[in-house]
Amino acid sequence: MSTAWTSRYAARTKGLTSSAIRDLLKVIQKPGMISFAGGLPAPDVFPVQRFKEACHKVLTEQASNALQYGATEGYEPLRELIANNMARYGIKARVENVLITSGSQQALDLIGKLFINAGDHVLVEAPTYLGALQAFNIYGAEYLAVPSDENGLRTDLLEAPLRSGPKFMYVLPNFQNPAGTTLSEGRRHELVLLADRYGIPIVEDDPYGQLRYEGEHLPPLVVLDRENLRRDKGYSIGNVIYLSTFSKTLAPGLRLGWIVAPPEVIGKLAQLKQGADLHTSTFTQFVAYEVARDGFLDSHVKLIRQVYRERRDVMLQALQEFFPPAVTWTHPQGGLFLWVTLPQSLDIQAIFRSALEQNVAFVPGDSFYANDSRDKNECEGCRHMRLNFSNATPEQIREGIRRLAAAVKSHVMDATVRAELSMGV
Amino acid sequence: MSTAWTSRYAARTKGLTSSAIRDLLKVIQKPGMISFAGGLPAPDVFPVQRFKEACHKVLTEQASNALQYGATEGYEPLRELIANNMARYGIKARVENVLITSGSQQALDLIGKLFINAGDHVLVEAPTYLGALQAFNIYGAEYLAVPSDENGLRTDLLEAPLRSGPKFMYVLPNFQNPAGTTLSEGRRHELVLLADRYGIPIVEDDPYGQLRYEGEHLPPLVVLDRENLRRDKGYSIGNVIYLSTFSKTLAPGLRLGWIVAPPEVIGKLAQLKQGADLHTSTFTQFVAYEVARDGFLDSHVKLIRQVYRERRDVMLQALQEFFPPAVTWTHPQGGLFLWVTLPQSLDIQAIFRSALEQNVAFVPGDSFYANDSRDKNECEGCRHMRLNFSNATPEQIREGIRRLAAAVKSHVMDATVRAELSMGV
Repeated sequence: MSTAWTSRYAARTKGLTSSAIRDLLKVIQKPGMISFAGGLPAPDVFPVQRFKEACHKVLTEQASNALQYGATEGYEPLRELIANNMARYGIKARVENVLITSGSQQALDLIGKLFINAGDHVLVEAPTYLGALQAFNIYGAEYLAVPSDENGLRTDLLEAPLRSGPKFMYVLPNFQNPAGTTLSEGRRHELVLLADRYGIPIVEDDPYGQLRYEGEHLPPLVVLDRENLRRDKGYSIGNVIYLSTFSKTLAPGLRLGWIVAPPEVIGKLAQLKQGADLHTSTFTQFVAYEVARDGFLDSHVKLIRQVYRERRDVMLQALQEFFPPAVTWTHPQGGLFLWVTLPQSLDIQAIFRSALEQNVAFVPGDSFYANDSRDKNECEGCRHMRLNFSNATPEQIREGIRRLAAAVKSHVMDATVRAELSMGV
Repeated sequence: MSTAWTSRYAARTKGLTSSAIRDLLKVIQKPGMISFAGGLPAPDVFPVQRFKEACHKVLTEQASNALQYGATEGYEPLRELIANNMARYGIKARVENVLITSGSQQALDLIGKLFINAGDHVLVEAPTYLGALQAFNIYGAEYLAVPSDENGLRTDLLEAPLRSGPKFMYVLPNFQNPAGTTLSEGRRHELVLLADRYGIPIVEDDPYGQLRYEGEHLPPLVVLDRENLRRDKGYSIGNVIYLSTFSKTLAPGLRLGWIVAPPEVIGKLAQLKQGADLHTSTFTQFVAYEVARDGFLDSHVKLIRQVYRERRDVMLQALQEFFPPAVTWTHPQGGLFLWVTLPQSLDIQAIFRSALEQNVAFVPGDSFYANDSRDKNECEGCRHMRLNFSNATPEQIREGIRRLAAAVKSHVMDATVRAELSMGV
């Protein structure tokens, strides 16, 4: 019956597939499942009472505006609050540099729409955030994937891919999704210098920057670009587009993110946003403003840090206790994820199935590689698991890691036995 | 400073310009301005108390879910409520046929993304909703524009353009934006038959269908397609994708619309939506569900009809009273807009400037024609003004029409004088 439509899909949707994580979210709804799969904040830290008061205030004092159509660029007091808040992290944006988006995901979509012609290359980390790949894929992006290590993107490997002229670089410097690693300060300086030298701009995605549990805050790329390279040319955001969000500091259900960019780029992005959804919900913007104002955001972020730091520590402790020595993992200084590396010889899909049988879920690493081979033997991502530590309670984390370790161990043993058998043959 | 970015815009953004209406909205913020320009609902009819109660209830009983990430397809109870509500208008959709979007504008963007290859033709009414043109333009759409009259799209002119194979037709059958006209029942039957005969599917955009102030409800195209053509083939939505929204019945600040389509198409659209914004705000969906449930939507729509009917009548009355006989206008049976036709000889841009000087605003008609000539003498849209009657109060409407008539009359006189002079030469 739907043939008139289904024979008419545009070329750009060829190969469009549902994200592995999305399909996963359906499986893990079953009762008793402990999920390390999503990137969900802990609902315990949603500031519910503050939301109640904010809704009441907004609807009592400003309902006519809060429920009406609004400006595409966003609610101006919220843009100003964001600018002021970012200034505390060294990012000196003005209101005209800030575009409110329907979550950071929309920022990625608008950037893809504005910059990517089919066949253009985007330089990404390997591994990288799969939502960015999804957003860019639809515009026909191809990828230059540069490996990362425990200090983030390997800047020593950047020159050759930069020389080949990607449209831009997409980088997550803080507590990267999925790897949990942080780009070192030295590499940050190198990265903005190389970007400037080769004339390749940077999209800096920073959803977790405020959620640091240890160590010193490191300067964002957007700040280094301005301070190191454009100090004497007056105010400018220059070579870096910066993205962030309220999803991890207030609540993801609001769908509120933002883009920081030069005013001319903001103008173009706003025109595209107008065609995409006119503007982001006025109501959620008014409510978020009332929730975040008067310093609340800063004090609330302190609470989140405390809760997530504990959960991270519980997960690290449990990994240490339950996992076999052949398995390793990153030690994230912040954010929501850590990244487990398995011995090359294991079959991640089999482990994934075993884990689900044991009522514990994670995301297999192959989703996060832009150019990963489908061939199991050359599949870099197949050695990895992404584990989220923000959503489950400490008790669940301990129990979940115990179950996961059991699933992994059975495969380690299988593999060892197989290795012995094959040696014996 | 922003050259690294501004030299990198994708080809699809060439010719991207801000919408006339958007620029207008900035001008008309000045105090004393009476605006017939936007498509804004009356804030007086926002059900503020109901919103307050809904927010309180949602945050008391379901904060953990309402503030968390949600399913891309939308909040299931809301999808079900929408399906049940549409059934009262004959549209028998199931939950799996309904995708929640971030306003109807996102529905248009996702449809453009899923179906339009650069150079594809879309058949549209002349005039048509400019937001649809904006959404489709970015994917490289070209247009077959078919004239309409007081009974809507001229179906007698459809065969030739249908034969040339457009990707789909985009039609607003009820109280059309901008013309305020309604597609007659006879033409509705013809349209779905022709669509079926030529194998060209239809996007039916119905933001105002529930806001009828006189006459009988006419069957939506999605219903006729199913009943006339697919009765014996079991349940299906068939050849028509149907769009609607809560923007005109609850509040536009929520940014909540929906798409009704065959499940396979919904699946594809959901995959695209995932890359575009993950999902629409969970919080506004929960709140809208609480506001709309238990029959509130139906009783509230009755109130809106009453308020807007009065405003329409005041506007029609004032036009009759103040406008010169050479000017005509449509008599909308519902919706938010009416469409004024000026004598060919007048200069709409000059009238527009005069009107703004008199503190009254409208939208010049040329924005609503897909293929309109920039040449003033061949510019069909330049004879028209779109007037919104939902947002201003009855007193403002009367005063605004008086001012607008003064602006028009001065130009009618100019034109008459000019005509006389040129006859004398």
